[in-house]
Amino acid sequence: MLFFTQCFGAVLDLIHLRFQHYKAKRVFSAAGQLVCVVNPTHSLKYAPTRCAAAQASAEQGILPPCHHHEAVHDPQLVPCTCPLFSCPWEGHLEVVVSHLRQTHRINILQGAEIVFLATDMHLPAPTDWIIMHSCLGHQFLLVLRKQEKYEGHPQFFATMMLIGTPTQANNFTYRLELNRNQRRLKWEATPRSVLECVDSVISDGDCLVLNTSLAQLFSDNGSLAIGIAITTSKVHSSEAEM
Amino acid sequence: MLFFTQCFGAVLDLIHLRFQHYKAKRVFSAAGQLVCVVNPTHSLKYAPTRCAAAQASAEQGILPPCHHHEAVHDPQLVPCTCPLFSCPWEGHLEVVVSHLRQTHRINILQGAEIVFLATDMHLPAPTDWIIMHSCLGHQFLLVLRKQEKYEGHPQFFATMMLIGTPTQANNFTYRLELNRNQRRLKWEATPRSVLECVDSVISDGDCLVLNTSLAQLFSDNGSLAIGIAITTSKVHSSEAEM
Repeated sequence: MLFFTQCFGAVLDLIHLRFQHYKAKRVFSAAGQLVCVVNPTHSLKYAPTRCAAAQASAEQGILPPCHHHEAVHDPQLVPCTCPLFSCPWEGHLEVVVSHLRQTHRINILQGAEIVFLATDMHLPAPTDWIIMHSCLGHQFLLVLRKQEKYEGHPQFFATMMLIGTPTQANNFTYRLELNRNQRRLKWEATPRSVLECVDSVISDGDCLVLNTSLAQLFSDNGSLAIGIAITTSKVHSSEAEM
Repeated sequence: MLFFTQCFGAVLDLIHLRFQHYKAKRVFSAAGQLVCVVNPTHSLKYAPTRCAAAQASAEQGILPPCHHHEAVHDPQLVPCTCPLFSCPWEGHLEVVVSHLRQTHRINILQGAEIVFLATDMHLPAPTDWIIMHSCLGHQFLLVLRKQEKYEGHPQFFATMMLIGTPTQANNFTYRLELNRNQRRLKWEATPRSVLECVDSVISDGDCLVLNTSLAQLFSDNGSLAIGIAITTSKVHSSEAEM
């Protein structure tokens, strides 16, 4: 009996994997772009009290403090920038990428344009979907977060951070694009530096924000495909174009 | 004394008008597009109970009923589509535009691409900014609404409706674009028909949605410039492009 149950479980897993692959392939064939299937991680960092405190301070216009541990004594050292875990690690900016890959198992993708396919959008908040993106000689961290800023009303927040300094970040523009059901939503902005803390970017709402209803319109079988492109910015003259 | 107070009031009004004109002209010169300054109207239609009922039904997945009066007996007649007022008028679809212009004093603009400059974004919800847009042989209604879907957290909702049937609406694509402070947000969709009711489009969140913080980032001195473009849609093949 146990054998049959295990066999049935294995078959279900295979079907699920095949389905994920099919979904990814479909977007991939349509776009000719690299697709990365990103599974969710239920964030371990956010105790409800921490979220509430961050929300309250954001509403009062005060940024929540952004340190994962007491203080960084050596100005050359930065704390772990992984938004998922309270991690005691600290190190030089140059080794943040290898720390994120090795310790937090965050995937890294190459290419100027990729498709980020976040699965299981229905999972309860707080949940994060994270990858690193290597492009134009730099590494970027893409964070999609499901969070309840207003109790009972989860929203999705997507942003891109440069694993580098704020001055370096100013040289780039990132674009996130959703495209489905005869609707298209594009967000373009200068990436923030990971030194600035992803939590405060999301509390400020200075990112792509989706209500649950809109996320459902853009998702396909519980997965949300986000097209990502990074370019070097041209002296920010784009404002005059509109 | 009264004379001096009146003079002072008149001078203040002049300064305000001059300032609005200057703001519009600045966007206009930058873009070479027609700018329409749209003043807000505090919506008289929404009693708090009506809003709460609409919200509750939207959350349960039921669309709120969308009739401004009891019933339309003649199928050829449509009720007044003005989202601002509970208006007892009903008439043929062809005369909706003249009713909106004459009775509700809604401006109409010509041109494929225009800039909608909504003033006084700080006014409390519920507030609407409305214009009509004449383009490609049809008239469209642009509605920007500030509404509290979640109590104490006003959001901005922008959508475009065709003053025509749903079948006619399917032939078009509208684009709303915000562009300021090195950020750009674009929403593209098929317009809904005014027969479908703007209230339910907004309750569903199937439109451009802005949190207050994002609206502030995109606005300039309390005014929000939204670039509008309408095109005929090409068999909706755009989904494959991403």
